[in-house]
Parts: sequence; C-alpha cells; structure tokens
Amino acid sequence: MPGMPDQPALTLYGFWRSMAAYRVRVALALKGLAAEEIALDLDAGDQFAPDFLALNPEGAVPALVGPGRPPLTQSMAILEYLEERYPDPPLLPADLYGRARVRSLAALIVSDTHPLIVPRVREYLAETAGFDEAALNAWRAHWVGRGLTAMEARLAGSPETGVFCHGDAVTFADICLGNLGVAAHTVGFDLGQVPTVARIIATCREIDAFAKAHPMRQRGAPPAAA
Amino acid sequence: MPGMPDQPALTLYGFWRSMAAYRVRVALALKGLAAEEIALDLDAGDQFAPDFLALNPEGAVPALVGPGRPPLTQSMAILEYLEERYPDPPLLPADLYGRARVRSLAALIVSDTHPLIVPRVREYLAETAGFDEAALNAWRAHWVGRGLTAMEARLAGSPETGVFCHGDAVTFADICLGNLGVAAHTVGFDLGQVPTVARIIATCREIDAFAKAHPMRQRGAPPAAA
Repeated sequence: MPGMPDQPALTLYGFWRSMAAYRVRVALALKGLAAEEIALDLDAGDQFAPDFLALNPEGAVPALVGPGRPPLTQSMAILEYLEERYPDPPLLPADLYGRARVRSLAALIVSDTHPLIVPRVREYLAETAGFDEAALNAWRAHWVGRGLTAMEARLAGSPETGVFCHGDAVTFADICLGNLGVAAHTVGFDLGQVPTVARIIATCREIDAFAKAHPMRQRGAPPAAA
Repeated sequence: MPGMPDQPALTLYGFWRSMAAYRVRVALALKGLAAEEIALDLDAGDQFAPDFLALNPEGAVPALVGPGRPPLTQSMAILEYLEERYPDPPLLPADLYGRARVRSLAALIVSDTHPLIVPRVREYLAETAGFDEAALNAWRAHWVGRGLTAMEARLAGSPETGVFCHGDAVTFADICLGNLGVAAHTVGFDLGQVPTVARIIATCREIDAFAKAHPMRQRGAPPAAA
C-alpha cells in the first residue's frame, strides 16, 4: 500500500502478538496510510531498551513516530489522533450519542479486557503468584470470554447494531472487536455462544485492513501450525 | 451545585470506591453540570441486578443517564461525550498532538492500571487463585505503583508538562492522575518517589471538583478512620 501522497513517513513500533499494535495497523490501513513497522520482541524485553524508552518512557507498544513531533503512544489515543488528522474515511459516527456508544464498546475491550492479558500481567502471575501454564491459560480464557460475552450482551440487544458494531460502517468498536476475535481463537473460545459478535468478527475478517493486521502475518510471528 | 440552566437532568450510577465513577464526577463538576448520583454497591453485586443490566448490559459503573437517550457508559467515553457536548471549559488541548498526549497519559491509567484492580479481578484472584488479603494487597500495590512510576517517567521528562499534566490547564490526564492519587494513598505508596506526579496530584486536590469527587465523600463510603 503506497499511502497517501502527502502523508509524512510514519514508523510504527509494534510486536507481532500485540493487540494494541493490531488496532493501530487496522486503523492506518483503513485510513489509507502507510507505515513502516519495527518489530520489537516484548518477550525479550525490547520495550525496556534505552532507545525505545526514549520514545516511550512507559516501555509499551505501540508507538507511532512521524517527523518533527513527539511519538504518539497508547492505541486508542493514536486512533483518536488519526481520526482527527485524517477524518476520511471516518471511524467514528457523526452524532454525539453514536460516538459515545462506539467509544464505550471499544473501551469494554481496550480497558476492561485486554489489559488483563498483556505480557507484564502474565509475568507477575507466573513469577509472583506461581501460575503455571494451565493457570495462565485459564486466566486468559476467562477474561477473553468475559469480554466476548459482555460485548454480545451489549450488541445483541441494541437497535444501533448493524452490519458492524454501530450501523453499517466500520468504527473503532469493530477494530477492537476484530482484535478480540483473534484472542478468542487463541484461547479456543466457541464463538457459537456469541452469535452477534461472531457475525461481526467474520465480516471484519473479510476486510483487507483487518486481514493484513493479523498477528500471524507480522514479522516475528512463529511459523503457522500445519 | 445547580448545574447549567439549560442542562438536562442527569443521573449518574456510581459506586463510592469506583475510580471510573470518580472520573465522571470530576468531569461533570469541572463542566459545571449537576447530576444526581445513585450509589450501587458493587461488593453486593448491585451491578448485576436486572434493572441495572437493562441500563448497562456489561454490568459495570459508571452509567450516565439523561432523558430520551440510551445510557452512556465507560468513563472515558463519557468524558469524550461531555467534551463534545459541553466544550467549555475544555478538558482537552486544542492542538492534535496535545490531544493525543493527554489521551495517552489518561490511557496509561485508565487502560494499563485501573482495570487490574477492579472488584471482578480481585474476586477471580481470591476465588480461583487462592489469593489471600496480603496477596491481593500486594497485587494492587504493584499495579498502582507501576502506574505511578510510569506516569512519572512520562511527565518528568516532557517539556509539555506544566502546572498540570499538559500545560497549565486541567485535562482528562489530570482527572485520571488525581484518581490514581487516591489509589496511591489506599495502597500506601510513597509519593516522594514520583515528585512530578506528587506535585500535580497535590495541585488537583485543591480544586473543588476533585475534592468533592473523593471516594470517602460519597454515599456508601465507610466512616473515615480517626
């Protein structure tokens, strides 16, 4: 993808498995923006290397870097920035309630679900609380399942749910839900339990921007299982 | 506080101890908006009562209800809504990078810190992983400390940090940091380790909107210790 002719050169610091980097990848692609991705290895602690800490003192991906300005960090702050800077195509509805609903659906995933399953939390549980692989997997499956079930409860009962989470256009909420769909697959969650969620995830998967952002298609990903 | 003359009647469903409800309380007060607060008891499971699930099928506070429209949920989605609907006084800077920085600082707290210490996570750790009171307190102290330290790293090194997190006006980031300051006190974190954070928290504490939103001043809070 060539990107928009007048766009500044963008560099995305990511990690193949990062849900937050996935969200930025999808949003960039939907906006028609090209970015070179630099693959950190969070398992190896690349996020704590001095060069990266100079970009993001929090030591977390993603970071989106452009010429002549400080790095942008935190996936949803980056999405909001992209929406304000490159409004077309929009990834938020035009009306205030619609925007609030989309941001709330996104937050259910970005705030209530994803932070529980990031590497730093798994490390704490393994090192401090003695969680073994089975306990870690149960932990991850629990929170991913809770997120999917809560999304289903919100989406299935709402007249505002359409082809996508909010009406018939892709929004922040779909980017986050597509993201959670990847995690659902990882933990073996049966999407038959959440039919509205499953339908929207399947629809998103057909869109090139989502497909190309998939963790298994990123540099650093392990070879796909046969 | 009477609220703006033309504002619709607002009802906030909260919980005295909820960090997310605190954020909405502060934002409403800064915007000069009055809201009646209905105190749920999350420890007793009020958030799963059918009447409340009809408002928010996720079963989480806060929810902000106004006449003739669906409830608004998720604290930051509510703050963004309030900012768009009642832009004065602004709680986000006008420039795009500034807005992105403020949202990113807020997300460090709202996404990377707070979700780890909510009641549902404590319950999982107690019931499924056998965490006792000491282990739960260590867990909470760890993540609150990590959040405060990461905020210090970001704020102390940035020329954009001013009287508040971003320049000299209160933004979303200060609302979230004031919030984390309450949690710091609860876990006994020594704010001397994070001088920039400590200074901003102390400044916020002098502002009426922050002081009145404090958990210990809400209905349902336990009597203050002597």
